[in-house]
Amino acid sequence: MSPTITAFAQSPDRGRGLARDMRVRWALEEVGQPYDVRLVSFAEMKEPAHRAFHPFGQIPTYEDAGLALFESGAIVLHIAERHAGLLPNEADARARAIAWMFAAVGTVEAPIIDLQTAMFMERDKPWHEERLPLIKDRIRDRLGELSRRLGDADWLDGAFSAGDLMMAHVLRRLSVSGLLDEYPNLAAYVARGEARPAYQRAFADQLAVFTAASSG
Amino acid sequence: MSPTITAFAQSPDRGRGLARDMRVRWALEEVGQPYDVRLVSFAEMKEPAHRAFHPFGQIPTYEDAGLALFESGAIVLHIAERHAGLLPNEADARARAIAWMFAAVGTVEAPIIDLQTAMFMERDKPWHEERLPLIKDRIRDRLGELSRRLGDADWLDGAFSAGDLMMAHVLRRLSVSGLLDEYPNLAAYVARGEARPAYQRAFADQLAVFTAASSG
Repeated sequence: MSPTITAFAQSPDRGRGLARDMRVRWALEEVGQPYDVRLVSFAEMKEPAHRAFHPFGQIPTYEDAGLALFESGAIVLHIAERHAGLLPNEADARARAIAWMFAAVGTVEAPIIDLQTAMFMERDKPWHEERLPLIKDRIRDRLGELSRRLGDADWLDGAFSAGDLMMAHVLRRLSVSGLLDEYPNLAAYVARGEARPAYQRAFADQLAVFTAASSG
Repeated sequence: MSPTITAFAQSPDRGRGLARDMRVRWALEEVGQPYDVRLVSFAEMKEPAHRAFHPFGQIPTYEDAGLALFESGAIVLHIAERHAGLLPNEADARARAIAWMFAAVGTVEAPIIDLQTAMFMERDKPWHEERLPLIKDRIRDRLGELSRRLGDADWLDGAFSAGDLMMAHVLRRLSVSGLLDEYPNLAAYVARGEARPAYQRAFADQLAVFTAASSG
C-alpha cells in the first residue's frame, strides 16, 4: 500500500508549486516512495471528514497504514526517518538538519506568511501600501541572516537534507515578490533545489492536477 | 557534562516565562536532565560568536558535547528523542506528537507572532487600532479549531507529550491579550501544563534570572 496525501483540487497558486503538498511530494520523490493523491475542494477541507485528518482544515495530510498525519514539516520528517536520503546518518548532523526544518516553518516562514496575508486579505485596506515595506524589511532581516549563514555553500549544512527541502520551498513563496533576487546566493540555492530530478517530478505532478482542473 | 542553553540576560517579558528558552527548560525538567544556562545580552545575540550557534541571532541555543542546536522546536525534539517522558514509544503516536510540535510553531504561532509584531513594532502606526481586530480574528480561527480538536481531553493526543509542551507554551503568549479566556478548554489546557512540577521548576529558574538582573 502506498501512502495517500491530500492536495488542493484547485490550487490557488495556479500550478506554481507553492502549496504545501509540494513539500511532501518532493520528499516522497527524493526517497523513491510512490504515493496516491486525494484532491480536496476548499469546501471539503473545512468539513468534519477532512478535519478528522487535519484539525486546521488545510492540506497536506498523509495517511499510511492507519497513521494519519498533518503539518508538512512533520510529514516530511516522518518520511525522512523511514527512508534513506533526506537525513544524515550521523546523530548530530541529523539533529542540525531537523533544526533547519523548524527554522524554515517557524522563523523564516512567519514573515513570509505575513506578506501573503497582507496581499490576500488586507490589499483593500487604506494602510496596505504604507505597511508593505515594513513587512518586506522584516523578511529581508531573515533573508540576510540566512544568506550570510549559507555563504557559498550548496546546502545549509553539508549534503542536501530535509532541512534544505523545507527551506527551499519556503523561500520559493517569495518568488513573485522579487525579494529573493536581492540575495543571489539564496536565489541560486532555491534554483539548485528546483533542479533536482525529484523536485521536477513532484512539480510536474502538481502542475498536472492544476492543468486537468483548468481544462475540465 | 550537562548541556548548556542560552537565555536572555534581561528578558523582555519581565520574568513571565514567555521567552522561548522556557520551552527548553521545561523539556529538560520533564526528563530530569540538569543543564547550565549562559545568559546573553541583546547586543551579544547579534554578534558573530552567538550567530555561530544561532544564525538568526536569537535564543535559545543548546550545546551538548560538540553538538550546537538552535530553534526551540528542534531542541525540544532532540531532548525528547534522547530521554523518556516526552514522546510516546509507539511509532504512530510518536509521529502525531511531532505533528503537534510543528503545528505549534507554524500554524498556531504564526498569527500570534503577528499580534506581537503589531503590539511592539506598529503600535504608533495610524492603522494600529483598526488592524488589531483583524489579527485577533485570525488567532480566533486557529484557537477555535484547536479548541474543537482538544474537546474535553486533557492533552492533544493521549498522554502529555512534547507536542503539548510546545503548544501550551505558544498559547501562553496570548495570556495578556485575553483571547485565551474565550476558549475555556484551552485556558484549562494551558493551566494544566503550568501546574506540572517540571513547568514550575523551569518557571522559577527563568524568573530567578530576571529577579537577579533587576536587583543588580
